[in-house]
Amino acid sequence: MLFLYGYDYTVEDLKSFRQLHSKTPGHPESTDCPGVEVTTGPLGQGICNAVGLALAQKQFAATYNKPNYTLSDNFTYCFLGDGCLMEGVSSEASSLAGHLQLGNLIAFWDDNQISIDGSTEVAFTEDVIARYKAYAWHILEVEDGNSDLAGIAKAIEEAKKVTDKPTLIRIKTTIGYGSLAQGTHGVHGAPLKPDDVKQLKSKFGFDPEEFFAVPKEVTESYQKHVESNLKVQKEWEATFAAYKKEYPELGAEVQRRLDGKLPEGWEKALPSFTPADKSVATRKLSEGVINALSDILPEFIGGSADLTPSNLTKATGSVDFQPPSTGLGDYSGKYIRYGVREHGMGAIMNGIAAFGANYKNYGGTFLNFVSYAAGAVRLSALSGHPITWVATHDSIGLGEDGPTHQPIETLAHFRALPNCSVWRPADGNEVSAAYKSAVSSTSTPHILALSRQNLPQLEGSSIEKASKGGYVLKEASKPDVILVASGSEVEIAVNAAKLLEAEGKKVSVVSIPDFLTFDKQSDEYRLSVLPDGAPVVSIEVMSPFGWSKYSHEQFGLSRFGASGKAEDVYKYLEFTPEGVAERASKTITFYKGKEVLSPLTRAF
Amino acid sequence: MLFLYGYDYTVEDLKSFRQLHSKTPGHPESTDCPGVEVTTGPLGQGICNAVGLALAQKQFAATYNKPNYTLSDNFTYCFLGDGCLMEGVSSEASSLAGHLQLGNLIAFWDDNQISIDGSTEVAFTEDVIARYKAYAWHILEVEDGNSDLAGIAKAIEEAKKVTDKPTLIRIKTTIGYGSLAQGTHGVHGAPLKPDDVKQLKSKFGFDPEEFFAVPKEVTESYQKHVESNLKVQKEWEATFAAYKKEYPELGAEVQRRLDGKLPEGWEKALPSFTPADKSVATRKLSEGVINALSDILPEFIGGSADLTPSNLTKATGSVDFQPPSTGLGDYSGKYIRYGVREHGMGAIMNGIAAFGANYKNYGGTFLNFVSYAAGAVRLSALSGHPITWVATHDSIGLGEDGPTHQPIETLAHFRALPNCSVWRPADGNEVSAAYKSAVSSTSTPHILALSRQNLPQLEGSSIEKASKGGYVLKEASKPDVILVASGSEVEIAVNAAKLLEAEGKKVSVVSIPDFLTFDKQSDEYRLSVLPDGAPVVSIEVMSPFGWSKYSHEQFGLSRFGASGKAEDVYKYLEFTPEGVAERASKTITFYKGKEVLSPLTRAF
Repeated sequence: MLFLYGYDYTVEDLKSFRQLHSKTPGHPESTDCPGVEVTTGPLGQGICNAVGLALAQKQFAATYNKPNYTLSDNFTYCFLGDGCLMEGVSSEASSLAGHLQLGNLIAFWDDNQISIDGSTEVAFTEDVIARYKAYAWHILEVEDGNSDLAGIAKAIEEAKKVTDKPTLIRIKTTIGYGSLAQGTHGVHGAPLKPDDVKQLKSKFGFDPEEFFAVPKEVTESYQKHVESNLKVQKEWEATFAAYKKEYPELGAEVQRRLDGKLPEGWEKALPSFTPADKSVATRKLSEGVINALSDILPEFIGGSADLTPSNLTKATGSVDFQPPSTGLGDYSGKYIRYGVREHGMGAIMNGIAAFGANYKNYGGTFLNFVSYAAGAVRLSALSGHPITWVATHDSIGLGEDGPTHQPIETLAHFRALPNCSVWRPADGNEVSAAYKSAVSSTSTPHILALSRQNLPQLEGSSIEKASKGGYVLKEASKPDVILVASGSEVEIAVNAAKLLEAEGKKVSVVSIPDFLTFDKQSDEYRLSVLPDGAPVVSIEVMSPFGWSKYSHEQFGLSRFGASGKAEDVYKYLEFTPEGVAERASKTITFYKGKEVLSPLTRAF
Repeated sequence: MLFLYGYDYTVEDLKSFRQLHSKTPGHPESTDCPGVEVTTGPLGQGICNAVGLALAQKQFAATYNKPNYTLSDNFTYCFLGDGCLMEGVSSEASSLAGHLQLGNLIAFWDDNQISIDGSTEVAFTEDVIARYKAYAWHILEVEDGNSDLAGIAKAIEEAKKVTDKPTLIRIKTTIGYGSLAQGTHGVHGAPLKPDDVKQLKSKFGFDPEEFFAVPKEVTESYQKHVESNLKVQKEWEATFAAYKKEYPELGAEVQRRLDGKLPEGWEKALPSFTPADKSVATRKLSEGVINALSDILPEFIGGSADLTPSNLTKATGSVDFQPPSTGLGDYSGKYIRYGVREHGMGAIMNGIAAFGANYKNYGGTFLNFVSYAAGAVRLSALSGHPITWVATHDSIGLGEDGPTHQPIETLAHFRALPNCSVWRPADGNEVSAAYKSAVSSTSTPHILALSRQNLPQLEGSSIEKASKGGYVLKEASKPDVILVASGSEVEIAVNAAKLLEAEGKKVSVVSIPDFLTFDKQSDEYRLSVLPDGAPVVSIEVMSPFGWSKYSHEQFGLSRFGASGKAEDVYKYLEFTPEGVAERASKTITFYKGKEVLSPLTRAF
């Protein structure tokens, strides 16, 4: 299709389907394939992306459209199969799309009654149509999706008329229609056999001996579409030019967003702190940043998966993104009530980012429940969507909710994911640095792991230093040991250093709020933070997996947490200045007399 | 409730609610709280556990009940709230429960219209009843769930009469009923204020000045229930004694299962291999083990999330677990068609394990999509459910499907999860060892990462050696370097060793199929595998996170994979004998003249 529409593909590209380095990989990826808007393959993600695209369109249109100036009125189209409908993530997003009355969303259910295990009768006998009616969707049906093209076109026109409900068009089809193996899952993943291809081409009026050939009338027909699309584009450009004259301020804002630029000097709004400022939970500091940015960044929209009062994700005075008819907000609202739908939220966030217009959207939940959305987070990273998770209650420090809510493996999981920035700020300056990184990102998702408990403003931190992903917070000359930590453990490391100094030991303390950002710094800088000559001990109340990149010895948790007061739990698990100092002392003894190279120095 | 029913709780236990080391943590955990059947807290898991419990009951009853001998006929009850209904995982399991016609499942929807963000009107306005009807559930409604106890009791009796559909009983309630803050989310997570407690107790006829006191009539009322339950237990024991006489073979089997024992010598059925045997994909070897065990272990049941022909999870000739009316199987069937519902499958597997009767149940999907089920896997590990993921297509070796399907972070994620065995076998003997570990486990979930591509039967492997989680596959005396790998990379390491040996270097090769099992071996054994004196290089085509436990230098992937033929992708990313040998040579050079301690030797 993209080839026919004139995107940057050649017939040679099509011939190298599923081959290494081709533009036509096994599943289409938005980063490598021109014209592909979202990376799909994992089932259920596409419909959620579509909900995000439609949501963003509504928000953009409500914010910028003016009488006689329609800057945005597009529909979002999505194909989904039986497998997508079985996945819970599609249920979450579809329920929300119905609630939000996204009349600009049109989805086609390719109802071919086949999945990998054979007939859908073996596992999927629910009444999909009734379910989508229950979600308040508009339903249309095309009985013969194999050949009734007029019926499909008519359904699309009908769907466009319903403005307060998303539409599901059920299209009954035969998988592999026309093939000798039609109606079986055999046509899903394997190429058709040569004689089957031959009879199929003959059946549909093509030359059975021609391969990778496009009949002239097909090329011409698509070319006509391209031309009419270009005309639409020209008309839009004229509208926008007039809009800029009549609404110079808004016009400039839209232009800036389309250019993918942030307002000049936006980062000056980020709060900074000194040690004289009081102790505050990093989730609360995050709320401060959201408040500061909300006023100056119209593209900074977001919400929470039903944890608003815990995640502190709602800017003061912000309006809910809601259908006006609910009386709860309107479509220009910037705050999204996702409900308890973490995976759906993650996949919808990807869709909002894919809409363009520089959307920098965020979603809140507890860090532990970002795992529910692992499938979507992976696609954020693979697709380069600059979305942000406001992931509060980031450790055993959440206290009483206990092991079911206390992350252990979570940071290792997402740090091991390529192109995923996982910030765990230790104080207010680091929170500001984390948001600076997140909002200015154009191709990297961010997870901000934020504390429930109060943390002090650290001596030695600054937005600038933290923006390097890792820095020396407290420097000793020729240290006996370097303590490296993140988040709430940085304070403990600083206090452990004091205990060790009282014993005459020299200790440096390093804060590494984000591995990915630190890894991007120069070798020289990184070696200045973690130099040769001193053993490094990492401290983090989670799985130590991954910390060997920056430390010789790791103090972490290889067990689940415990329910109790945060301070009791920390003490029980020995994450105290004394517990850290003891391990640091053992490390000093262990490495005494040995040559110690920086953990950054590797054999290859 | 458990206190009133006479479980092992004292009033002191209740007073220490949410305190460290109490029996009454923030969320009830099955491992620490007597009488708690499944660990809950994370929303949506409970109803899926209930589906698993009900599924197991049906399977057990259909397998063992005989005319006049009803060994099992219990109902499974479940409470769920608005939040649970919003989670996609509950949609997945509920759809399947309807398909499976689980009439033994009765769920109560606590419809209080409140979640953390306030009124459910802000995000959850779908028609839940219509949705559950679409899933083919039986629906009952109780208008006044606050005080109409007779109405609730009547609904339960009605629900029991419907045998071919699960029942959802909608109970309209007021959250915090009777409190001054009733009807608000303020009563969800915070204790009531003292004056509120006082008025509440007065309102319901309790002494407002008494605390932690149980009126005598309440104690007596519950005691009566306990007595009648004991009577039921006695009757069941008599039935089972008679059953054992009439059906000695089946009776002994049930007794063995209730004792949590496997049949004597079951592990002899596990196939073993020699290097003369042909190269086979480990997913195919896994199929061989499933076939071998299926006949001798009635408790070994499982299925796939719609990837049966890819996961190879179905034993030859096995019957589907299906409602007999579908004509597709029956309730004594051992093969479960989960549909494309990975998260639901994971949570249902936990429920099947929680049923008891020694169920050892497994579920298949691609390794990359175990991540969709991360929330459930975490609870398997926390609760100690011995379930097994048959996780095929375990790496870039899956080839053409490309980065959306190729795991990078997945092994690091689950290895960082406490009490999760993550096996990545390198050949047939290791596959058998993995299943030996999985099936004999009583409290640890297993993820078996299995290849799509063929792997040779290795010289030096055996079920016994692999059962230690890590072992020396090829030993050199005083090696210059030790290569350690898992799965498909072990063969590459062996071939790299040959290249290095041709250059006069001495090389040992170690296979570590499972970190958790290896960590449980004695220090002496582990140090014999990874001794002092030689640098260790790990090789795995995934994130290197975690491998520093067993290696000084790590060759892994810190990027996404690529779509192409498996051999092309391996070559491109340099996972070849040459690529490994080059890194090993650099490692030898780097460590030359340095004291090299085993990576197992740590400062603390």
